[in-house]
Amino acid sequence: MGKLIGVGVGPGDPDLLTLKAVHALQSADVIAHFAKAGNASNARAIVEQFLRPEVTELPLEYPVTTEQPAGDPAYRGPIRGFFDEAAAAVALHLDAGRNVAVLSEGDPLFFGSYMHLHVRLMKHYPTEVIPGVTAMSGCWSAAGLPIAQGDDVLTVVPGTLDEDELIRRFRQNDPTVVMKIGRNLPKVRRALVAANRLTQATYVERGTMHNERLMPLVEKPDDSAPYFAIVLVAGRAWHP
Amino acid sequence: MGKLIGVGVGPGDPDLLTLKAVHALQSADVIAHFAKAGNASNARAIVEQFLRPEVTELPLEYPVTTEQPAGDPAYRGPIRGFFDEAAAAVALHLDAGRNVAVLSEGDPLFFGSYMHLHVRLMKHYPTEVIPGVTAMSGCWSAAGLPIAQGDDVLTVVPGTLDEDELIRRFRQNDPTVVMKIGRNLPKVRRALVAANRLTQATYVERGTMHNERLMPLVEKPDDSAPYFAIVLVAGRAWHP
Repeated sequence: MGKLIGVGVGPGDPDLLTLKAVHALQSADVIAHFAKAGNASNARAIVEQFLRPEVTELPLEYPVTTEQPAGDPAYRGPIRGFFDEAAAAVALHLDAGRNVAVLSEGDPLFFGSYMHLHVRLMKHYPTEVIPGVTAMSGCWSAAGLPIAQGDDVLTVVPGTLDEDELIRRFRQNDPTVVMKIGRNLPKVRRALVAANRLTQATYVERGTMHNERLMPLVEKPDDSAPYFAIVLVAGRAWHP
Repeated sequence: MGKLIGVGVGPGDPDLLTLKAVHALQSADVIAHFAKAGNASNARAIVEQFLRPEVTELPLEYPVTTEQPAGDPAYRGPIRGFFDEAAAAVALHLDAGRNVAVLSEGDPLFFGSYMHLHVRLMKHYPTEVIPGVTAMSGCWSAAGLPIAQGDDVLTVVPGTLDEDELIRRFRQNDPTVVMKIGRNLPKVRRALVAANRLTQATYVERGTMHNERLMPLVEKPDDSAPYFAIVLVAGRAWHP
């Protein structure tokens, strides 16, 4: 019976793969990767240089966009069926004794699609999860921004939350990371203004990649942002 | 002028260093590492196999325990002086043109002491921050516990918060990571009971290390825990 391995590939810079991830990629029989239908996998692009030419690849294509609210029934039905089918496709390889490495941008169990294979297959097959550097760590490191210290509480919110909930979270005055920016940027900006924290916010796009962009959010002139852009909202300025 | 490099060394397993971290360690002129007075540096132990035998080492020894409340004046005065002196010691090497890699367990800008050198030296010297796998990622990966998905809000709280504040945070029903457990474990346990979330909690000690221990918190028979132990409190059980 093969082993299921969730492999965190980090935030984008291939040098931010762990030694363990590189070893897993080079020894796995099958490399599975998620992508939007018609698009290349971002995770695969990060690790391309580490793949054996003869390795078997298993692309797993989302049937629907990931930008819909997770609770929307129009999203939940198809996405559940998709993960069931993806798990079955992976299981065929595991049953044949092949180890399957599933690529995850960032860290597999932190907002990663890998987890949906994990919960379906963990009872039946041996599993291993190789943690990765998260996108948010890549972003605050690129920005040189100490995000949390001492008794701070760090809050990580998806930009998909509704505006009132974003305002409520921002008003807690914790250092806060806003993920899944994309078309949510105007709403995130309004919520930061309402919580009087806009000037604490840094916008980061493709953190750690060669085409990384970062700037204070107040200096960003437009509202266009990729889905994986991140906004970092600093906490207290005081340091010992 | 030398470069200051904050190097995240990950949660404990040396194979969880990134390629970039290994490269930085092998090419730096000076390796600086923090430790409690009289103790060996945990971060140094993680990377020992990657250090050149002839490299210069700069140990930086905390004058006081890190378990005191960060706001306590009895802590703030000495710790500020300590970071001033540590930054001066690092600056001497930078002024002499030597690159200094400062080891950080986990990720440098996420509750890492490196940040206090960074904020003191960033205006005067070139800096680079190499993100690392956080201790919490190591722990939830070791536990095979999907920590956050979809529209979840992740909250990371230090166990040093007072009990009422812990209860308030736990009652938000977010997936929650409690860091800095140590002698705070009885308080954390009481707060989880008060928020009716004890059965969602997993206790992890030395996650990813050879002597890792993990168990449901309800099954932990005593209240003794190392400072760096972590409690993971799962969010909703629902997955698509």
